[in-house]
Amino acid sequence: MLTPSVVWQAGSLHLLDQTLLPQRKVVLLCESVEQVFEAIQQLRVRGAPAIGIAAAYGLLVDFPADADLALIRERATFLESARPTAVNLAWALRRMVSRAEAAVAAGEALLPALAREASDIHDEDRRSCRLIGEAGLSIVTAKPRVLTHCNAGALAVSELGTALAPIYLAHQQGVDVHVFVDETRPLLQGARLTAWELGQSGVPRTLIADNMVAHVMSRGLVDVVITGADRVAANGDAANKIGTLGVAVMARHYGIPFYIACPASTVDLSTPDGSAIEIEHRDPDEIRRFRSEWMSDADTPVLNPAFDVTPAELITGYMTDRGLLDSPQQLAATFSAAAD
Amino acid sequence: MLTPSVVWQAGSLHLLDQTLLPQRKVVLLCESVEQVFEAIQQLRVRGAPAIGIAAAYGLLVDFPADADLALIRERATFLESARPTAVNLAWALRRMVSRAEAAVAAGEALLPALAREASDIHDEDRRSCRLIGEAGLSIVTAKPRVLTHCNAGALAVSELGTALAPIYLAHQQGVDVHVFVDETRPLLQGARLTAWELGQSGVPRTLIADNMVAHVMSRGLVDVVITGADRVAANGDAANKIGTLGVAVMARHYGIPFYIACPASTVDLSTPDGSAIEIEHRDPDEIRRFRSEWMSDADTPVLNPAFDVTPAELITGYMTDRGLLDSPQQLAATFSAAAD
Repeated sequence: MLTPSVVWQAGSLHLLDQTLLPQRKVVLLCESVEQVFEAIQQLRVRGAPAIGIAAAYGLLVDFPADADLALIRERATFLESARPTAVNLAWALRRMVSRAEAAVAAGEALLPALAREASDIHDEDRRSCRLIGEAGLSIVTAKPRVLTHCNAGALAVSELGTALAPIYLAHQQGVDVHVFVDETRPLLQGARLTAWELGQSGVPRTLIADNMVAHVMSRGLVDVVITGADRVAANGDAANKIGTLGVAVMARHYGIPFYIACPASTVDLSTPDGSAIEIEHRDPDEIRRFRSEWMSDADTPVLNPAFDVTPAELITGYMTDRGLLDSPQQLAATFSAAAD
Repeated sequence: MLTPSVVWQAGSLHLLDQTLLPQRKVVLLCESVEQVFEAIQQLRVRGAPAIGIAAAYGLLVDFPADADLALIRERATFLESARPTAVNLAWALRRMVSRAEAAVAAGEALLPALAREASDIHDEDRRSCRLIGEAGLSIVTAKPRVLTHCNAGALAVSELGTALAPIYLAHQQGVDVHVFVDETRPLLQGARLTAWELGQSGVPRTLIADNMVAHVMSRGLVDVVITGADRVAANGDAANKIGTLGVAVMARHYGIPFYIACPASTVDLSTPDGSAIEIEHRDPDEIRRFRSEWMSDADTPVLNPAFDVTPAELITGYMTDRGLLDSPQQLAATFSAAAD
């Protein structure tokens, strides 16, 4: 069993510091909202669903006995500003604020009501992951040589993850799965997290540099691509970790199907298309050095977008907690019905 | 002026250790053929033409007064085995062995004849670079926002480099050039070498991770791609640093022209097509760690091909020392005529 990335216990929030994996397993005990903000911004907790869960619990850290709606809203606004692209962060915080409003209106005590809501978000996420896994299982069973980018596994979410969920389920059922793991520069979530968590679960995997994707595809070594997403727009465009777009372009060139795996909370029907998604640009030093080692001169000009947008026309389908959806139309119909 | 990567002076070979750049400028004095072999294999000297030049001089290091043809051949075979993919290495050594044979047949002294031959190879390379730059100049003048992969600059060759030659010439002529530099995992020749040498010459550049290529192309920031090559086959397929194939696929997707810049010595008409090119696979630790810092677990399975093959149909043209060639047919015709 993997160490869970987010744990809420006896009123305190424990986050596995993913920036130090796999060499060091350090669990952070967050004692202030500022610490939660820092953990989200510095990617100590990462992965769209895990960020949402951490933020929901994060609202409750060091909770004053006299906390009111104004404080909850202030904390929510603060935490939401930690990262702009992931929709789950805003989604989870909005849901917590709504619950707080309802609690105040009904004269309920805030802390137990909100703790229950955060725990519900967490439980729903676990169920979502299982449903996503079931939605993608037939694909992975038929196409067991999978390539994935970044980490959309247990560390990013809960239990099965999103993109890795059908892989874990297929592996548990004895399918001869093999995963090519992009290392995912600059922060190496593939090398540090995905390769590690697959290894912990005994799933055969091969780590490659991001620029080796075309080579392995051209040699016929990949049957299907599955990645997570940080935000899926109403037209089916998907924002995900930088590099996903290139993988999708190469998959199209080599005739390899490309799937996005995500829960309902990642689908944002209020965003019409990918051009409306704000792309977070991060510290140039993430490219210039890795931990203590410099990879370029310290004054080299750098572009460091954290995400890119894959247009719907490059996406074969969506593995979701409402089933396998074959088109952006089906995606929009399914999730707008669900939102009603 | 950049420190030259290969210098032959008073009978000894000096190599700038490119593995330590840009943080440390260390010049190796090679005192044995074994040291030259190690420098080539460990990429202390790298770039197809520079390897050829270093190997040509390398034959002459610690040259015994009684050296005969057998020793020259033995040293050539040994040095050629240091890296299998780059054609210039074999080409330069073959040329040196032929010269040694001619010298023996003519009763000439070996060392001066061979030193002259190596120096000719070096001079021809300088001229080649200038001709390549002139062949590509009109392209870069019209399309000044260039993306390049790996290092095919002054460090890889001599003076102007190959892929960077038209960029340097355009910059010298006042064209408003801008270069996107792929960092080029795993050994980061883009981050460490290309970004640095462009900076030394005042050429505006932006360093990106390899997986950001599709993003910058999709945003309309790139006019043209130019890379070097380690071997070009008779049908126009080109082996170059791993990742080049992906860049070519993405360039095609976004309608961006993709050029290979290379001298005659890189064109190998005896290799019919890309499938006949042996791909060097390197140490998995190159992916698993960078210098002192581990990026994954030490036992993570890894694939680490050093090169990939870009098929001719993805290549818009070839910037060569025989001019700008628009098709594989023109390439084959030009270089088979030259070989006659």
